[in-house]
Amino acid sequence: MKAKIYLTYKEGILDPEGNAVKRALKSIGFNSVDTVQFGKYIEMTFTGVSKEEAEKLTDEACRKLLANPNTQSYRFEVAEQ
Amino acid sequence: MKAKIYLTYKEGILDPEGNAVKRALKSIGFNSVDTVQFGKYIEMTFTGVSKEEAEKLTDEACRKLLANPNTQSYRFEVAEQ
Repeated sequence: MKAKIYLTYKEGILDPEGNAVKRALKSIGFNSVDTVQFGKYIEMTFTGVSKEEAEKLTDEACRKLLANPNTQSYRFEVAEQ
Repeated sequence: MKAKIYLTYKEGILDPEGNAVKRALKSIGFNSVDTVQFGKYIEMTFTGVSKEEAEKLTDEACRKLLANPNTQSYRFEVAEQ
């Protein structure tokens, strides 16, 4: 099973990397860029578990380790590899 | 228009963050975790451009700024917001 996890900043949390990239893009002529938001993308594979178990494990991994609940939101999809 | 961009390490490139998270997950009992790969997830919005233009701009932004062609691969999707 393979989980694809997306971590993004919660609304109102400063995103310095996103702001820097937005400025850099504008400076090289990308004038139609409106917003840029940076987050993390994590691929995790499991062996010997069902889809339901992989979903439970992924959610638990996000809560216990991957996401900072104060500043980040997470979402994920689990599918056969 | 909104672009969702995924940056991942190319095969064979060391992913220290992914390795550290894999070890940390194993140490707290996630024994069925097989691989963990870290990447970046970027959301970019555009105003006043068509889907085709947004796709062209996103590809150009990846090539000129966002992705390191030596170590990273990128893929993206563009859709109405």
